[in-house]
Parts: sequence; C-alpha cells; structure tokens
Amino acid sequence: MSQSHLPELCKQVRYNILRSTTAAGTGHPTSSLSGVEFMSALMFGGFFKTELDNPANPNNDRLILSKGHACPLLYSLYYAAGHVSETELMNLRKFGNVLEGHPTMKWQYTEAATGSLGQGLGVAAGMALALQRDFVTEQSYPNVWCVLGDSEMAEGSVWEAMNCGAYNNLNNLIAIVDLNRLGQRGETQIGHHSEVLEAKANAFGWETFVVDGHDLDAIEVVYNQIAVSESPKPKMVIAKTFKGAGISFLQNKDGWHGKALAPEDCERAIDELGIVDTNMKWAIPHPETNLVRAINKSSHSNFEYNKDDKVATRLAYGNALNNLGANYADVVALDAEMNNSTFANIFAKNFPDRYFEMFIAEQNMVSVATGLSRMGRVPFVSTFAAFLTRAADQIRMAQYSHANIKFMGSHVGVSIGPDGSSQMAVEDISLFRAILDSVVLYPSDAVSTDRLVQKMTDHKGISYLRCTRADVPVIYNNNETFQIGGSKTIFSSPNDKVTVIAAGITLFEAIKAAKELSKEGINIRVIDLYSIKPLDKSAIAKACQETQALITVEDHLQEGGIFEAVSSCGVVTKHVHCLAVKKMSCSGTPAELLKLMEIDADAIIRKVKEVLSNPVLDIKVDEAM
Amino acid sequence: MSQSHLPELCKQVRYNILRSTTAAGTGHPTSSLSGVEFMSALMFGGFFKTELDNPANPNNDRLILSKGHACPLLYSLYYAAGHVSETELMNLRKFGNVLEGHPTMKWQYTEAATGSLGQGLGVAAGMALALQRDFVTEQSYPNVWCVLGDSEMAEGSVWEAMNCGAYNNLNNLIAIVDLNRLGQRGETQIGHHSEVLEAKANAFGWETFVVDGHDLDAIEVVYNQIAVSESPKPKMVIAKTFKGAGISFLQNKDGWHGKALAPEDCERAIDELGIVDTNMKWAIPHPETNLVRAINKSSHSNFEYNKDDKVATRLAYGNALNNLGANYADVVALDAEMNNSTFANIFAKNFPDRYFEMFIAEQNMVSVATGLSRMGRVPFVSTFAAFLTRAADQIRMAQYSHANIKFMGSHVGVSIGPDGSSQMAVEDISLFRAILDSVVLYPSDAVSTDRLVQKMTDHKGISYLRCTRADVPVIYNNNETFQIGGSKTIFSSPNDKVTVIAAGITLFEAIKAAKELSKEGINIRVIDLYSIKPLDKSAIAKACQETQALITVEDHLQEGGIFEAVSSCGVVTKHVHCLAVKKMSCSGTPAELLKLMEIDADAIIRKVKEVLSNPVLDIKVDEAM
Repeated sequence: MSQSHLPELCKQVRYNILRSTTAAGTGHPTSSLSGVEFMSALMFGGFFKTELDNPANPNNDRLILSKGHACPLLYSLYYAAGHVSETELMNLRKFGNVLEGHPTMKWQYTEAATGSLGQGLGVAAGMALALQRDFVTEQSYPNVWCVLGDSEMAEGSVWEAMNCGAYNNLNNLIAIVDLNRLGQRGETQIGHHSEVLEAKANAFGWETFVVDGHDLDAIEVVYNQIAVSESPKPKMVIAKTFKGAGISFLQNKDGWHGKALAPEDCERAIDELGIVDTNMKWAIPHPETNLVRAINKSSHSNFEYNKDDKVATRLAYGNALNNLGANYADVVALDAEMNNSTFANIFAKNFPDRYFEMFIAEQNMVSVATGLSRMGRVPFVSTFAAFLTRAADQIRMAQYSHANIKFMGSHVGVSIGPDGSSQMAVEDISLFRAILDSVVLYPSDAVSTDRLVQKMTDHKGISYLRCTRADVPVIYNNNETFQIGGSKTIFSSPNDKVTVIAAGITLFEAIKAAKELSKEGINIRVIDLYSIKPLDKSAIAKACQETQALITVEDHLQEGGIFEAVSSCGVVTKHVHCLAVKKMSCSGTPAELLKLMEIDADAIIRKVKEVLSNPVLDIKVDEAM
Repeated sequence: MSQSHLPELCKQVRYNILRSTTAAGTGHPTSSLSGVEFMSALMFGGFFKTELDNPANPNNDRLILSKGHACPLLYSLYYAAGHVSETELMNLRKFGNVLEGHPTMKWQYTEAATGSLGQGLGVAAGMALALQRDFVTEQSYPNVWCVLGDSEMAEGSVWEAMNCGAYNNLNNLIAIVDLNRLGQRGETQIGHHSEVLEAKANAFGWETFVVDGHDLDAIEVVYNQIAVSESPKPKMVIAKTFKGAGISFLQNKDGWHGKALAPEDCERAIDELGIVDTNMKWAIPHPETNLVRAINKSSHSNFEYNKDDKVATRLAYGNALNNLGANYADVVALDAEMNNSTFANIFAKNFPDRYFEMFIAEQNMVSVATGLSRMGRVPFVSTFAAFLTRAADQIRMAQYSHANIKFMGSHVGVSIGPDGSSQMAVEDISLFRAILDSVVLYPSDAVSTDRLVQKMTDHKGISYLRCTRADVPVIYNNNETFQIGGSKTIFSSPNDKVTVIAAGITLFEAIKAAKELSKEGINIRVIDLYSIKPLDKSAIAKACQETQALITVEDHLQEGGIFEAVSSCGVVTKHVHCLAVKKMSCSGTPAELLKLMEIDADAIIRKVKEVLSNPVLDIKVDEAM
C-alpha cells in the first residue's frame, strides 16, 4: 500500500489535536502530538484492519489507548477516517459529548476505558487471548494493538501484562510505547534510552522493534516486519518520539504536560503546519477474515447437596463453576495461583482451554478479565478475597469499561484462623459495595452458593461472591430459591424480641445463639442477609416493625460492611447494634478469633440480652421521635 | 569467619521448621525448608550484623521476609540465635503467641508485616533509602536484606521496587530470591530457569548472583562478593533451591504447599536429619558502626491566608508540607509523578534530600513509605486520590506494619470536571475508612487544610487528607482551630429546620443553599464535617435534637462515604437524606457535574424543601417509635 498520503494526513491529525484541545480549554495536546506518525501509519497504512461501521465485528483488529490522556490523537484519527464528526471533535471534553477527557464507553470505538495508567496492556492481553481462542482453527488472529506512554512503564501492572503476554504466546498482541521522554513533571526514569526499555522487554520474552517514531518510512518497515513475523512472542514497538512533536515551541519542551494551548498559541502552532486539508478523509481497510462468533446462552443445572453435610462455600463455588462450564460455553475462569484453595481447579481440569492461570498477579488478572469480557466472555475471577484488594484500581476501572466480571473472594474474615491478619479479608465488602451498581453476595452454605453463582452469571455487570474457608453445614434444601436482593428469614415467630442479621460464617453463630436463647424463652429473628447489595429492604423494614432492635453481626469491619449497609438503607427505624471486626486480628483458631472479635454466638447472646435489659440504648431514638 | 558450624545449624533449623509446623497442625514447612542454607549462611556466617537485644539500633542490618508464609524458617533461625524460646516456637500460629502464621509486629524482630506477596521489596527499598540518608557521611550503610519467593516475582509491585532500587542506587538493598520452582498449585512461570530471572533483574539495573541455594560454600562466596562489591547497583541473589529441601519425600515434590506434616510423617522427616543438637545456640555479630540517630520533634507554624482569597486545598497542602519541612526534620515526602498537581513540588524544591520521586508506581510508593516509616521518618504520600486505589493492598498491609503514613489524595470527586470518570476519586473515603483506627480528613478551605496537616503530623498511624482540585474561597479566619474528630457549624440558629452536613467542595454548595433558603425564610444548619473519621458525634447528636432532618451531601459514592458514616454513627435519631454520587460520571464542567449528581446548591435546596413539605419521608421512623 502506498504511504504517500500519510504526511498530509499527519498534518490534519496535528491540526485537529491542536484545535480540539484549545476549543476545550483543557486536555493533552503534547502527549497526543508525539504519536501522530506511528498511529497514522498504523491505522491508515494498511496495517490495522477494522470495519468502522461494525465495531463489534469479531474479525476487527483492536486498539487500546493505554495512555488514555492522549485521546485527542485517537479522536483526530477517527475524524480522518470520517467516523468522528466536526461537532464531536470541537466539543471535546464537553458535557454530553461522546468524546470525553479520557476514552470511555460512551464512544463506540473505545475498547476499554483508560486513564488510570498501566492498565491497557492487560486488557489488550485479555482481548488477544480471546481472539486466539476464537480463531484457533484459522491461525489468522486479528491483532490487538496497545499504545502505552513511557511514564506508565513504571507501573508494575504493565510488567504483569508483559509476563502474561509472553507466557501465553500472544503473538497477536502488539504494544507500541510512545517514548517521548517527558512525564508530567519532568523526564521519565529512562528518558530517551530505548535500549533500557528494550532490554527489559526482551528479558520479559517480547520481540522488540526500536524505531524513530516520527519517521513514516521507518515505521512502515517495522509494521511490515511485524506483519510477517512468525515468532510466537508478543511484539513491542519502541517509538522514539518527542512530546509536542511538530510544533517548535512545544516539541521536547518541559512544562507543557496536560495544557491546552491558548487560542493565540494554537493559531501560531497551526501556522507552523502550513496548509492543511481539513476536509480530506482516508480509508481504513476491512478485515480479511469472516468469522461469525456464535452467541452462547447460559443454562443452569443445580449441584445438589445433602442437608447437614459439611461443605465449604468455596467448594460449592468450584462445583457451580464447573457446572457452568458444561452449560455455558462463554464462561471462562481466571485464578491467581490459588485454584486449589478457591476450587477453580475443578473447572481448570475439565475446561483447560477456558481456564487461564494468572499466577500471582491479581491486577493483571482483573485487566485480562476486562478484556475477555469485552470479547463476549463471562469471566469468573477468583483468589483469596484479601488479595482482590490488590486489584482495587483495576476493579474500579472495570466498571467504566462496562465489564461483566464475576469475582469470587475466598478465605474471608478472621474465621480463616491461624494464617493471621495479612490473609484475612475484612474490607472486601466495602471494596465491592463502592462500585456503582455492583452486586455483593455472601452465601452461608453450599446450596445458596450454588444458586447464587447461577444468578451472578445471568446478571450483567460487576458482582462479587464472598466465600468462607471453613467446611460448614448445608442448611438449605435443594428446592430453596435465592435472589439477588433477597434474604432468608431463618427463625421467625410472632414474639421475636430482636432481629439478628448475619451472613456467611456468622449466620451459624446467630443460629446457635437463637437456639440457646430460645431455651431461656427469648425468641429472636435471624435473617440470612446473603445479598448485601442490593439489600432486601422489605425484610429489614418488617424486622424493624416486628422486633425491638436490630443487631448485625459480620466477619468484616464495620466500615462499609453489613452494619453500614443496613443502617443506611433507608427503611431502618430502630437503633442498629453492630457486632463486627473492630480491632486488629491475629493467628488463632477460628473459634478463638470469632470470640476475640465478639462476633460469635456468645457475643450475640450477650448483645441480645444487653439490648433487652437496657432499653436505654434505644432511648435517644425514642426521645427524638 | 569459619563456616564449619553451618551444617549442624542447618540441621537444627530444619528440625525446628518441621516440629513447629507439625505442632501447629498448619503452616508452610516446605517453603521454609528451601531457604535453610542461604538463610543460615547469611545470618550465622558473619554477613548479617545486628544487635538482637536492641532491634531498634539504627546500625543494625535489616531483614524482611517478603515470602512471609516461610516464617517458620525465620523463627527457627532466631531460635538458633537464642532469641525465640521453645514455648514460642512450639506455639507457632497459636492464639496469643508472638509467632503468627505470617510475620506481624507482635514479634519484635518483624520489620514489616508480610503475607500479601510482592510487597517486601518495596518496604526494604524504603528502609535502605532511609539508611543511606542516615549514614550519608560514612558510606557504610547497614544492609537491608529481603527474601522473596519465586512465585511472587509475578507481582508487578516487585518490578516497581526493582525500578526504584536501581534508580536510587540502593546498593545496600539485597534481594534473595528463593527459586524453589514450585508455587501453590504447581510450577511457577519460570521454574528453575534462573537465567530468565537473571536477565530480567539485569535489565532492571540490578547486579545478580546465581547460586546453588543449598551449597553453603557457594553461598559464602556470593555473600563475600556482595560484601566487597563497589557497584552502586542493588543486588539480587538468585538461589536455586528445592521446595521441601532435605526431606526425601518432600523435596521438589508437588502437592505439599502450605501443608504441615502429620506427626508420623514429621517423625519420618526428622529421622532423615540424623542426630540434631537441639540445644545448641549460635551467635550473630553486632554492627560495627555506632550511629546514634537523633529523634526529631515536630513543631508547627501556620501558613496564613486571607479570607475570601481563592486557594485550592491541594495548594494549601503543599504549603503546609513545606512548612513542616522546615519544622520537622523527619518529615519526608513521596509523590507519583504528580507533584505539580499535588503541590508536593514546593517541598521537593526546598528539601530535595527528603523528597522521593516515585514515578507512576503507586504500590511501591506506599511500600517505600512503610519502610521509611519503620525507620523513624514521617512520610507524606501524595497523588491523585483515584490512583491511591492502586495501592489499596499496600495501604491495607501498612496498617499491619503499624506504619505512620500521611496520605494526601488530590483531585477528588466529580468536581474535577472535564477529565472524566477515570480521574475522579469517588471511593477514596470508603477505602481509607476501612482501615482500622484510620483518620480521614476532608477540609474545605486553605486554613482548615493547613491546620489539619499539622494535626495529621502529630497523629500516629494512617491518616488521609482529601483535597479538591478547584480554587475555592478561604472561609476560615487564621485563628480558627481544627481537631481530628471535630467539625464546624457554619450556620446555626434557634429555628433551623434541617441540618445539611457537607465537606470539601460541597460545603460551598451548602453555604450557597443556606443563603438562598434564608431569603425565603427557611433557616438551615450547615455543618462542615471536615473530620469524617473520627466523627464529631456530639455535633451530629445536637443537630438531630435541634432540627427536623439531616441531609448529607458529598462528592463521593454513598457507599462507605459521609452518608453511611453519619447514618451509622450511633447517635442519629433522624432519617438521614443522602445526596451523593449515585451514577456514572463523565466529562463536563465542575458545575455541570455537581448538578448531574444532584450535589449542588440547587439540589440541596430542592431536598430541603422536599423534606419540609413531605414529612411523610420521616414517617416510618416516627411510627416505629
């Protein structure tokens, strides 16, 4: 393909980067300008094949701008292709426009929301992995291109993705690093030393190509080399560029990060470009493959349990996941070296082609899951709940990518026992509740776990299943049903004094407490709050009406957990008493630690009696009303 | 130093690893056994110098076991040195014992709590950095040794620390990687291919030494090479070992991760060791330097502001930090490539020796801060609040290391405007509230920011300051005082109808609403809830008594934020109405986004009127009482 159109195209792209950011009065022109040549050559040089009118075409090459702040470049490229309008471009970063300050899903060509640096490559790896599976018989996988900034190469998550790309032989994954030397506040760690980055990438198992990122001919040579490479390795193009390239007073100058040009400076910059054809459009070739990807439909089969058998909910998760494997071809599973603890290993054994071992790299696991989700998969992501915290930012960003990910965190709370505080998730409910529209489930037994895994599967969006380490009795019959937003009232009578709201491991303590108390003639209501978000407000409202007080008991901090969820759910008319993890934990037996934290049956009994014998605890509420 | 005692010592260490884990019935004998030789040679071969009776001696070499699950090895080594008792050892992982399942601060020799993998090297880098500063005139820095597992080399945070070590020429930082081939559920990504890891470490700027990790003579050679190395580079020893080494039925066998031996297997294993001298103790040499580190004392000076001037709270943070620099020699600052946005650059300019540029590697920034804190520094850590989420697990672990870190997150909430959702922290209050005993502050203006930074400095533990991007008016006089756990009542009258509780950017909206409403004859109380944790419960209780309803308004999700903190604080006797971020944000002006989220003055006015005209909203509470 002749590349003679590229210089003219580059001029237009520069022009649009400049005027769109100046019109916005905000944005990142200089970080965009450095990438003009290598991106124009990629997209309009015949190397990137996509059907712009059908972004969902499974044959399309994919592009993720990990350095999301450089999106004016991306938008200007799609403008050149006739797929961003003048109005859209000139309303960059404005309220209601699809072209936001960083790429979001509002714009149809965004593959993944970026802007928290260092995450794009993991998402790209997930997409590349999915495409390799889709095209396994053809060996002509679409490529996934990922453009990274040099500053973000300091993020550990990038190196997790590098490992992942090499380990999985993702030769359809191509990173382009925009080595423009300058970060936000000065030079990056490596400056223009491409050899440093190249050595790192090679050591991580990648094939590298160093190129002058402003030399269109040299870039074309590299892209051609990549097109014919038969290496199983993922590729990295290290493009030596200048920040603010092409504009004399911006190029390679410090102090211009994230600054739109004032109108007079913008005019001066545009003058430097010479005559620009502002109306010209250029074509991007279509993909040459024609795979049609079947859309799978989930169906479910229950895993049956015998009441009173002792089964850990994490094992019930593993069984349910395995059942899903047989019933739903789009389900995939990822785990971070813990699959014999999370029991994702059952699925891994039976569906090896749909199980991805992510090793101890939780951040990348979540980004890869986001990429897999973007390609139509339904990823289940499991590890110890404490270690999901490691990927908090990736989980945060996943919501902005509209990712459909099912998280399972095992070994929650102090009840894990001797391993000690580092392994105990006591803030995971808080983490997952603070995701918009998330679902947070915390089943107590195997039957409820099995049925809730099915509900998670059918739910679109981010959901979280909290699982306990210990073997616990099956308390529900196989014909019981469970809903997102539901609860189960385990004990209820017309003369319940107090309601105890529990979930997971503490439900068994509440049941024990209720049985003890009933011997003394004190009836309490016990609610299994297996759905923490959304909450069963009607059950809570009913408990408020029918009993004198609510006590929540949870193996989690009080902040952001069940107590706060219940207290603030809008229907509570009673003082809520909180039994939760309120001090630092340590090693011990599960029983010792539940006792230490005062979330065991004895603590519940004490609290119920205290509440009943000291109505003063509620007096403030009474007085105020 | 003759090393002839080492084989006998190794036998004892193995013996104690085996019997202590078997006594515990839980733990990681095999991950401990692989390190016996290289650790015995280090600690008892004359290479590690420490005063065991004085763990705080600033001249001590330091040791961090990043692979914390292998602590039975560490405990057995200190047993051999006479500093772990028989009772302690044989009560491993038991409730109340200082020897926990993973190292914690309960045990006096723990330098940092580990167990969430991949974090030790960053903490070690922070300690090495502090020691280099302490010993700057002597050039005989104590060493910081960090023992890593091969599985955890998959964590990106390790590679962030690798970058940091090389960039800062931490030649007193020495990593030992226990390349025992096996992870939890099978082989690691690199297996026994030491050359793969060596290439990576070299590319990241480290000097490497590959050694047979069970060959005491070879290990001694390596440690001697390190002792005489004049390279400015940090060092990595890659010790090729076998998991379960020394016991025929464990060595290099899969399926033994994290499993204590049954008593009969333990006996069989101990039999293989031959005769063990169980009472023998060995000496560890003392350090040869005698630096006495002065303990600095903080003092404060106010930065004065003029009322009604417009000053961003992030700038007030920068000014306050700079004042602290002059007043408190132990204050250090770290920032992740954002110091011209967080204004940590003022401190950086004036105190370059105490400012550490961490580049875009937030996880490592927090781990390094933990290390600096452990060495007596008072680290201030700043970046965009959204990106502190990246280090959620490091922040979680920092609490278990009893770290004294002051976090500042800038650019919070949707009010940042055009950059869009990826840059907007709307879950940071939730994140920091879910740390035990944390302090969460959210000042609205420059004066309160300045005074609260001083309070943070004097507080021990983890505290968080939430800062706004926008320039906002100074509303407080310079003589006002602010307390952790305090609040300010901005408007108050005997006939306040409703109380609006706001903080940060929304306080200005609440003030505006109050002024508008007063024109219509509606008085509302406005509380500046600048301390979100702990809360000023008395002000909230008073507002409940004196006004008809509470409305919280916050530029944060409702989950885990101000609304839930207030709703659940135990003194609330009124229905709390929530104005918060409840949907996905986007690009726009700050005003447009505050309006979209219904957290602006108009929304407050609407909500106040709604509450007053629809007492039905509170009826449930009334009925129930």
